[in-house]
Amino acid sequence: MFPFESIIKINKQSKSPVYKQIAFSVIQAIRNGTLKADVLLPGSRKLAKLLGVHRKTVIAAYDELSAQDWITIIPRKHVSVSGRIPLLKPERLDEVANERPYGGQFLLPFKKIQKALSEQDTSATAQIIIDDGHPDVRLSPIDELLKTYRSYTSRKVSIKHAHVGTEQGTLQLRQELVHYLAGTRGLNISADSLLITHGAQMSIYLAAQLLLSSESRIIVGQPNYPVANKTFEASGATIIEVAMDENGIETDAIEVICKKQKITSVYVIPHHHYPTTATLSVERRMKLLELSKEYSFAIIEDDYDYDYHYSSSPYLPLASSRHDGRIIYIGSFSKILDPSLRIGFMIAPENFISQAIELRKLIDVGGDGYMQNALASLIKNGELRRHLKKARKIYHQRRDFLGTILDKKLGKFVFFTLPSGGMAIWINLLPAYPVAKLQDVPQLKILAVDTKHNAFRFGFASMDEREMEAAVDLLALKLRSLLSDYG
Amino acid sequence: MFPFESIIKINKQSKSPVYKQIAFSVIQAIRNGTLKADVLLPGSRKLAKLLGVHRKTVIAAYDELSAQDWITIIPRKHVSVSGRIPLLKPERLDEVANERPYGGQFLLPFKKIQKALSEQDTSATAQIIIDDGHPDVRLSPIDELLKTYRSYTSRKVSIKHAHVGTEQGTLQLRQELVHYLAGTRGLNISADSLLITHGAQMSIYLAAQLLLSSESRIIVGQPNYPVANKTFEASGATIIEVAMDENGIETDAIEVICKKQKITSVYVIPHHHYPTTATLSVERRMKLLELSKEYSFAIIEDDYDYDYHYSSSPYLPLASSRHDGRIIYIGSFSKILDPSLRIGFMIAPENFISQAIELRKLIDVGGDGYMQNALASLIKNGELRRHLKKARKIYHQRRDFLGTILDKKLGKFVFFTLPSGGMAIWINLLPAYPVAKLQDVPQLKILAVDTKHNAFRFGFASMDEREMEAAVDLLALKLRSLLSDYG
Repeated sequence: MFPFESIIKINKQSKSPVYKQIAFSVIQAIRNGTLKADVLLPGSRKLAKLLGVHRKTVIAAYDELSAQDWITIIPRKHVSVSGRIPLLKPERLDEVANERPYGGQFLLPFKKIQKALSEQDTSATAQIIIDDGHPDVRLSPIDELLKTYRSYTSRKVSIKHAHVGTEQGTLQLRQELVHYLAGTRGLNISADSLLITHGAQMSIYLAAQLLLSSESRIIVGQPNYPVANKTFEASGATIIEVAMDENGIETDAIEVICKKQKITSVYVIPHHHYPTTATLSVERRMKLLELSKEYSFAIIEDDYDYDYHYSSSPYLPLASSRHDGRIIYIGSFSKILDPSLRIGFMIAPENFISQAIELRKLIDVGGDGYMQNALASLIKNGELRRHLKKARKIYHQRRDFLGTILDKKLGKFVFFTLPSGGMAIWINLLPAYPVAKLQDVPQLKILAVDTKHNAFRFGFASMDEREMEAAVDLLALKLRSLLSDYG
Repeated sequence: MFPFESIIKINKQSKSPVYKQIAFSVIQAIRNGTLKADVLLPGSRKLAKLLGVHRKTVIAAYDELSAQDWITIIPRKHVSVSGRIPLLKPERLDEVANERPYGGQFLLPFKKIQKALSEQDTSATAQIIIDDGHPDVRLSPIDELLKTYRSYTSRKVSIKHAHVGTEQGTLQLRQELVHYLAGTRGLNISADSLLITHGAQMSIYLAAQLLLSSESRIIVGQPNYPVANKTFEASGATIIEVAMDENGIETDAIEVICKKQKITSVYVIPHHHYPTTATLSVERRMKLLELSKEYSFAIIEDDYDYDYHYSSSPYLPLASSRHDGRIIYIGSFSKILDPSLRIGFMIAPENFISQAIELRKLIDVGGDGYMQNALASLIKNGELRRHLKKARKIYHQRRDFLGTILDKKLGKFVFFTLPSGGMAIWINLLPAYPVAKLQDVPQLKILAVDTKHNAFRFGFASMDEREMEAAVDLLALKLRSLLSDYG
């Protein structure tokens, strides 16, 4: 007789009921060819004895197998493996025992996407993380937001339709945003020109996929937000880099390029550019708008950092001026509230938005309607405005504090320009101090390091003064040690 | 003198402070060429008088404009528009007044994506919505989930790192899923083979983008989940349709095709196929696995509906058998908990997952780490299992109830097979009764109508008996009226 007791494995500690374990073992044996079509199985009484379990357990297992068509039961006659199972070559039992179908490699061809950023250490063993400009979630009205969120989900009547319309974003949030964006950015738009996305990055992705192809050329700053560059590359477009200075991307250089070749789009981060933190000057903003009209290119205006400007009110977006809908405007709430709460938006003419919605439905159907409505309430009741006012004041102080201690403690190693806003300082190291060396400090992890420009971003918004001081002290210690290394 | 009072618009009802409104008006006038470079502006005292506001308000506006470099202030001398503003042709004031840059169309070329589904009415004026298989969110442990969510966000220490690692999904959720999937689906995987996505659709999108190109051919069932088809089309691949019957997709037909041409992938929904609800038989499952090995194609196994099977335990996934990592397995929690909570997963070999992560980072950076950890807790403490047990019992009853009243009340108009699981019945209308006519009932909205097969999906999971009865009565009324129309 076939050694059934050797192929049926029962683990009494398992949470899975014993009858299911028996059924599963039999299925695996059929699948790997150990049990072939039409093979007779022992009767329930016999198998129960072999396995040392109650007969009812075996009957339950056989019922399960029969319901799924793996076996055929002829009552009071016999039980056999279904005759319709294709013939399979049996595999060795020891191979089968350690079967882990996903243990190896995927061997069929598939696309390779280059990593956008250096590996981020997710183990987070470092005590201090210098991020590239995250909000301080300890200040965020998350609890307020979730209270509202819960109040939505507990309304039994309304929740049935919570997912309706989330491919574009709930109407409630879009309508609230129309007022909010008019008040904060001088944007005169309708709710139809708005798409709520899963964060600013999704807006960049959607814009790139819709605008660009392998025939397109897109102009970006040099340096630029690396994830944006990878997103444009993934669309097949050619990237043309244009130098940046303290007034942002050099628009004269853009003009020179446009005279020579067809440009599909220009990507700009007009406020607190990533990574350099430069703000695009008024003069260049006007110039860029002119060029966009003259050479018919789309501007992708990534204004993720709009709400944090300290020296004055933020500059009004390019999108708030006349441009006949050639600007795709991108914003985000992840930077205001919490990087985990991924809600952003895209503004574009309605015909472009409707295509972006179609693509978005293919990507992830839609967003979290409850969360969107909770955010709408936060905007409506003024909670978001109050939070921004408070956060702006605190971040302003933190920027100044970091500037001061950088001057005092790292003055002879680095140079930097205090940004007029945003959440990070772009710190350039003197050539004698390679930024890569800062990655050797075990207690410290810097997320955005640029070896090409020998610089890194120091996000000050998420750290209080004590934390920043500790980080700067560690950097000073390391840099001083390099000083002695290099003489 | 220039009529400044006519270009500066102040709205005392606006939430925006008056000084900002003044600054904004001046900026708009500079931008549209009404105010040219070097033009003198009135002194603050004079402008205050012209506008009927306090002088301090005008000074604040001028300070703002100066900080943003729109104007040049020479104290005690004059105020003028910055000399660096490019020369612009002025536009007519009345054009400017109603400026709405996004009011028109996006006129540059961009990709068009065909709509995947017929327009869904988001206005939701219908009293009864027949969905295509949504969970009943009134039964969901959403409140439990959010309580846990809040407990995470209120831990001030831990939240700083909540977004770390969310591009693959938090380790906590992936580890919990490894156990959960082993227990429920016989999947023996490691946390490295798992990617947490923003719902099952994102897994389909990522798989399509990585596997397919314009040279690829992918086999799908006919009919098939329309959004999946559109996703494959968007990748440029050619779709080959293979007939479906009550045992799922016809694998013999797949074999015939594979003999003639190179197939990159086969997409299957093995449980409760969308839209037909057929379950792929054991025989065909085995056959498909064999073919995948012989002809080296990837199987995209979309098992979004696994947890709801009523006649027996669910069939083990194809992915739980031996397949050397050729199966990309897709699952979802949106169907278990709430369509608004978009958490799904993809299982594939590690090298494929790492590419999927890179692509995912370009699309939306990552998911909501708090929500992922809250879900992990729900799985760990058994809440999810208890919910599933309860929901499975209720949905089972609802399926049976709907089957009974369909027989009783619509028996002469329709035919259907009671599905062995899932959340919807696929109802075929007799040829004399065109399904499109059911869309005319004003109180009723059917979300998934298939005019080609003259059929529709009736989601029973989200409705209680009273609601189903009301919907069926409306359908019966309409169908009877057609009967008399057609004689």
